[in-house]
Amino acid sequence: MLKVEAALLLLPAFAALIYGENCLWSILISAAISLAAGFGLTLLSKPKSQVIYAREGFITVALSWIAVSAVGALPFYISREIPSYIDAFFETVSGFTTTGASILANVEVMSRGLLFWRSFTHWVGGMGVLVFVMALVPSVTDRSIHIMRAEMPGPVVGKLMPRARDTASILYKIYVGMTLAQIVLMWAGGMPLYESIVHAFGTAGTGGFGVKVDSIAGYSPYLQWVITVFMLLFGVNFNLYYLLLIRRFRAAAQSSECWYYLGIVGVSIALITANILPMYENLQEALRLSAFQVASIVTTTGYATADFNLWPQFSKAILLLLMIVGACAGSTGGGLKVSRAVMLFKTVGREIRHLLHPRSVNSVRFEGKQVDGATLKGVSSYFALYIICILAICLILSLEPFDLETNLSATLACFNNIGPGLAAVGPASNYAAYSPLSKLVLSLAMLLGRLEIYPLLLTLIPTTWIKK
Amino acid sequence: MLKVEAALLLLPAFAALIYGENCLWSILISAAISLAAGFGLTLLSKPKSQVIYAREGFITVALSWIAVSAVGALPFYISREIPSYIDAFFETVSGFTTTGASILANVEVMSRGLLFWRSFTHWVGGMGVLVFVMALVPSVTDRSIHIMRAEMPGPVVGKLMPRARDTASILYKIYVGMTLAQIVLMWAGGMPLYESIVHAFGTAGTGGFGVKVDSIAGYSPYLQWVITVFMLLFGVNFNLYYLLLIRRFRAAAQSSECWYYLGIVGVSIALITANILPMYENLQEALRLSAFQVASIVTTTGYATADFNLWPQFSKAILLLLMIVGACAGSTGGGLKVSRAVMLFKTVGREIRHLLHPRSVNSVRFEGKQVDGATLKGVSSYFALYIICILAICLILSLEPFDLETNLSATLACFNNIGPGLAAVGPASNYAAYSPLSKLVLSLAMLLGRLEIYPLLLTLIPTTWIKK
Repeated sequence: MLKVEAALLLLPAFAALIYGENCLWSILISAAISLAAGFGLTLLSKPKSQVIYAREGFITVALSWIAVSAVGALPFYISREIPSYIDAFFETVSGFTTTGASILANVEVMSRGLLFWRSFTHWVGGMGVLVFVMALVPSVTDRSIHIMRAEMPGPVVGKLMPRARDTASILYKIYVGMTLAQIVLMWAGGMPLYESIVHAFGTAGTGGFGVKVDSIAGYSPYLQWVITVFMLLFGVNFNLYYLLLIRRFRAAAQSSECWYYLGIVGVSIALITANILPMYENLQEALRLSAFQVASIVTTTGYATADFNLWPQFSKAILLLLMIVGACAGSTGGGLKVSRAVMLFKTVGREIRHLLHPRSVNSVRFEGKQVDGATLKGVSSYFALYIICILAICLILSLEPFDLETNLSATLACFNNIGPGLAAVGPASNYAAYSPLSKLVLSLAMLLGRLEIYPLLLTLIPTTWIKK
Repeated sequence: MLKVEAALLLLPAFAALIYGENCLWSILISAAISLAAGFGLTLLSKPKSQVIYAREGFITVALSWIAVSAVGALPFYISREIPSYIDAFFETVSGFTTTGASILANVEVMSRGLLFWRSFTHWVGGMGVLVFVMALVPSVTDRSIHIMRAEMPGPVVGKLMPRARDTASILYKIYVGMTLAQIVLMWAGGMPLYESIVHAFGTAGTGGFGVKVDSIAGYSPYLQWVITVFMLLFGVNFNLYYLLLIRRFRAAAQSSECWYYLGIVGVSIALITANILPMYENLQEALRLSAFQVASIVTTTGYATADFNLWPQFSKAILLLLMIVGACAGSTGGGLKVSRAVMLFKTVGREIRHLLHPRSVNSVRFEGKQVDGATLKGVSSYFALYIICILAICLILSLEPFDLETNLSATLACFNNIGPGLAAVGPASNYAAYSPLSKLVLSLAMLLGRLEIYPLLLTLIPTTWIKK
């Protein structure tokens, strides 16, 4: 993992070289440390067994993400562009988890090499750090489906191909293709190449790091619409694109999750457009701002073209709800996931039918199939755990002197990997004001959210480490 | 139901007579209307079948609560002491659901007869309006367990006696006895008899309506401690008192829910006392205020001796969490109920154990017994529905120009039948500023919370009314 990260660091080093920036050396030193640590760990411990079970999968994923973030923070820290290591760690976790929450007040003073690295972490983290390694390294065993299951978002992981490695490889090909398409479309629209690449990374990973203080607000309406559309595209389950690739169009069109997702997006855009219309000059502008913000929040990207903190309470409440729902399972987006939300509603509906007709047999159907009891039980207890996590994180944050709107939206924005929240952590502001302890808690929240709670939670429970 | 309510109205009429107040006539007119409506409905429709199934039980309970509240609002409206009928309805729903949320800015200008009625609704609503009728009227059939199940709070309803009517009767005897004990203790502590009765009603029903602008803050520390202890006592499952009555002490001591409840209360009091200590003169005062507020919120009573809106954010966050947890099942308190919260945590724990050891058989144990799958499924989907309701109500409220802290805490405070929230609806304020629409939504929220969602929700669904 760390060896691969050393290789990844060469890409921003190349960018720094082009622009002749000083940060080049900090990046190269970090890459050397990463490489040394990687070789060191390989020499120190030879695994006795190559077999990976669910438990090993969870721990591997959780520890890898922490290690990658700890090392990825080095370039910011060594170059002194982010003087505090905890801040640098927060920023890197925010990058890899595709959150996009920043502690930087002015991103424009940063060097281009480091900003490239910052956005590149989004791109790598979006599809999964370990899935990335799996797609590259040939020596991965077949049990690595457990790693994929722990890292890929959603209640069920689709196996496109019999071998996990092939699935990872196909997913990455689609991912690279779509990213390239976006770069070209933005470049053609007048955005400089460097900025096109960086923003495409942020969109593809549904991250949200940019290179401007005002995020995307300064770009032309055309560019804003391109980013809106691509944010929504990256929020769709990637299996759908695979179905399109192998020309199974009917199967792709029958994905209920995708239709629910588009329905939620459409209704939200309409409601918010109507709600904010008096604030803007014409319908076109209100629609563009509403669509951009809805796409940005529901896919948990976090780019902004308007300070939605100044919008009416009703629009803010809709955005908060979208923060919870999140994108589709199997996409690069975060949150609870549309499929889980739909299954929860259907479970509740079944319970109501059961109360009315106690003797009838009720089953929950989703994606044209009957959902088995274990999946439903899993979704219900995941939701309970999800709410418990939000309440617990919010309780710890409330040790800070901020109001409930700030703390709750900071919790939701980090835990769901969105980025900006409301009030003091709104899109026009940042997370610098939180104490180091809270920044660590929020970093943990981002990792919990990105890895869908269990891997990290299990790693933190002592009994997991006891051998049976 | 309405005939019984007419009889109940004679009690405040008596109080009004003693104090020679004008409101006497409004109360008597309301009683006459209630009686006439009751007789009218009996004449209009004779039930074809006396059998009550789950569905009929739900609808009966929901419609009864709406009818009783609509009629119960008449005295306030006819006397012009609350000039708007919607306000009067809100206040009465708040009374019967034992919420205690008020639209009155100054309660001290109200007549004593109406204030007596206002608090009396708490006492009647606390144990259940229909359970009250069941305990009184002998002609109830044995299928009325369905009514009891729909009205009594908690995931499972204990049948103390084979016949529902006998259970209702025992519960009411305990309830009356404890209320009388509290009246005597407060009267002996120097509180005037009228105020002792009214505050005992508010405590017993875990309602929270008082007769002073500053709630309980003006009374002596002794009286505050008496109310603290009785609030906590009324938040315990009444089955426990029955077990104590029939001398099954060991069975009573083994109630896990009660121990969890006391644990939650103890930890919350300790944390808040430490948190607010710098604000007050000495430990004793901080402890008294912390204990009173914790007891008031966790039992969903809503009395106040301090404006906790001015407390640090951490204490406010703990109180918000307590709002969600609520009191024990089978008590007069509201909220999610301690037993549901514990079962949710245990379900999550089981899921984690299952991930670690996929082949082991895991069961959830509570109260010394294995919890069956149907109950667990019920608890999980109830929790999902509970959160969905909170989000939906909060979304509608956000059409108002209040901040998130106000709207969210108003939702929690009404839905969990507590009363005061935070910010603009804090204990030093009231709900008058909300629009009539929001007041109706909040009234609905109080009824949903008190009846544990399903009865009212099912009544609102058209398919419920279709004959099979």
